[in-house]
Amino acid sequence: MKKEVTTLKKIAQILEISISTVSRALNNHPDISHETSKKVKDLARKLHYMPNMFAKGFRQHKTNIIGVIVPNILSYFISTILKEILLQAEVNGYRVIISETNNDVKKEKEMLHTMLQFGVDGILMSLSKNTVNVDPILHALNQKPLILFDKVSNKIPCTQVIIDGEEATFNAIEHLINIGKKRIAIIKEFEQSYNSERRFQGYLRALKTNNIPIDKKLIVSTHDISLKKGRSLTSQLISLKEKPDAIFCITDAAAIGAIQTLKKFNIKIPEDIAVIGFSNSLNSTIVEPKLTTLDQPGKRIGEIAMNCLVTEIEEPKEHLTIKTIEIKTNLIIRESTLLSI
Amino acid sequence: MKKEVTTLKKIAQILEISISTVSRALNNHPDISHETSKKVKDLARKLHYMPNMFAKGFRQHKTNIIGVIVPNILSYFISTILKEILLQAEVNGYRVIISETNNDVKKEKEMLHTMLQFGVDGILMSLSKNTVNVDPILHALNQKPLILFDKVSNKIPCTQVIIDGEEATFNAIEHLINIGKKRIAIIKEFEQSYNSERRFQGYLRALKTNNIPIDKKLIVSTHDISLKKGRSLTSQLISLKEKPDAIFCITDAAAIGAIQTLKKFNIKIPEDIAVIGFSNSLNSTIVEPKLTTLDQPGKRIGEIAMNCLVTEIEEPKEHLTIKTIEIKTNLIIRESTLLSI
Repeated sequence: MKKEVTTLKKIAQILEISISTVSRALNNHPDISHETSKKVKDLARKLHYMPNMFAKGFRQHKTNIIGVIVPNILSYFISTILKEILLQAEVNGYRVIISETNNDVKKEKEMLHTMLQFGVDGILMSLSKNTVNVDPILHALNQKPLILFDKVSNKIPCTQVIIDGEEATFNAIEHLINIGKKRIAIIKEFEQSYNSERRFQGYLRALKTNNIPIDKKLIVSTHDISLKKGRSLTSQLISLKEKPDAIFCITDAAAIGAIQTLKKFNIKIPEDIAVIGFSNSLNSTIVEPKLTTLDQPGKRIGEIAMNCLVTEIEEPKEHLTIKTIEIKTNLIIRESTLLSI
Repeated sequence: MKKEVTTLKKIAQILEISISTVSRALNNHPDISHETSKKVKDLARKLHYMPNMFAKGFRQHKTNIIGVIVPNILSYFISTILKEILLQAEVNGYRVIISETNNDVKKEKEMLHTMLQFGVDGILMSLSKNTVNVDPILHALNQKPLILFDKVSNKIPCTQVIIDGEEATFNAIEHLINIGKKRIAIIKEFEQSYNSERRFQGYLRALKTNNIPIDKKLIVSTHDISLKKGRSLTSQLISLKEKPDAIFCITDAAAIGAIQTLKKFNIKIPEDIAVIGFSNSLNSTIVEPKLTTLDQPGKRIGEIAMNCLVTEIEEPKEHLTIKTIEIKTNLIIRESTLLSI
């Protein structure tokens, strides 16, 4: 069946009046008589006429569309952020176009380009972990309001919304020290990962504050942190002559891998080795022992990022807004660090 | 800083030519001299001119935007479908607007309305589980191509893409019978859930085919299936005088709840009671014992749904396309049913 769309033209033809009269009647123009206006509106309702918002937006130089670019939509944490972005967009009268880079820098650049071509009113973006050259993002920022969240970069002068990963990790490591752990290992990503580096800084600060010497053998890094890498790097750590007595992982997935390896080698958790993850995923409560982890308030990130963007769209300033909003997180203590001492 | 957007008007002003000349030069109109064309294109490139696709789409009565409406973006299964929809959209030159109903029927209706108002070229939709009145969807279908996936309804005459849940469940129940189970319980949703009903039909058919009498006490239903409900309904099942020797749950979450309760009461899995879930979520490999489950090929659903929609948009037919595409699934056998017999 050919779909029928009611247009101004069709209404005009049926009522034998001009298109501009129909348009003015629907927009309550004072020149149009009450009678004509009623006739037009009744017919428009009957035929389910709907104005094309894009056309309207185009005339107003606004589309009421926001572009969102994320590395991976399959991440539960990203999903919680997107959920809140969708809700806030609805509340503020915006639609959301979502794109996924899969950490592909070329794709990230293309996405930005097509979103600008498309005429979005603003962009919310979480960087690919391989983003080194930020020129495409600076170019976009020069044209439309743009806000970074979660995966950010200090090379981009805009509003950035992140979790305070440094403070969060500091608290997690202090918790391990408080339950008597002294040889605390960290499983992290290589240096180019901004979030991983921030967490690593918190690790270093906690050791320093508590006068615990840093042992480089206890610091292991990988390119692509995952459950599997959590397993293999834990194998590496427990084969050390001087084993760790705790492992902090910068993601829950890696921490679950760590737990699986420790159990395989009959190492007691948390007595022999305690484990902490990061993100409070659903899995962290299903693994045994249940995982101590840092909460990642995705809802809060989505809410703040979206509200900042709406403000920048609706109240444009003469200068760039450069600020970093850091959101506090809580340590959720579960069985993997629950020592009765 | 006020954002600067390069328009046709600006290019025309700088070159002191008419806007229509600029437009025709950019579109390679034969009336425009090579020299002018080059001058316009060079300046457009220098000023990062980008055509507003919405305006172009409006003139062509096409926006190249597809609307996607899902009940819950936090579901891993839905995320895998969305991931593939985004990829296929990119390949086919469409952008994707995503909306979430949170199973709210009123919101579902509003989303449909605003997407049509917005002028999307087509809609991909997974119904809210509370959808009873399908009139808003029939109304949308009358105006634009619309395809249902996962949560569908036989009251809507359109293309529907689903998992063959009846056949999948039949195979799962036959597997339980093959390992010697005879009192097989099912944890499902109430009748109005289309997917749950299809799975229940497969359960009934498997019992009938194998001459196992149906015991109504082993059939338990809930409105909102979840890990928690899996726990409480399993408590109910194991308090029966004649206990089940296997539990089939229509979701992995409920099956994980079932496993947690069985372990709490020291009931051996799978020797005393075997457990099967549905969806092959990441959790199904983290719970102990690892869960036997039915794979849900979200990628395949997203791919087929999107390709059907693109065909319906680009090759409109004179009649509605009514077909149901059922995707086969595999049973993944793990520890929760692995009996050496």
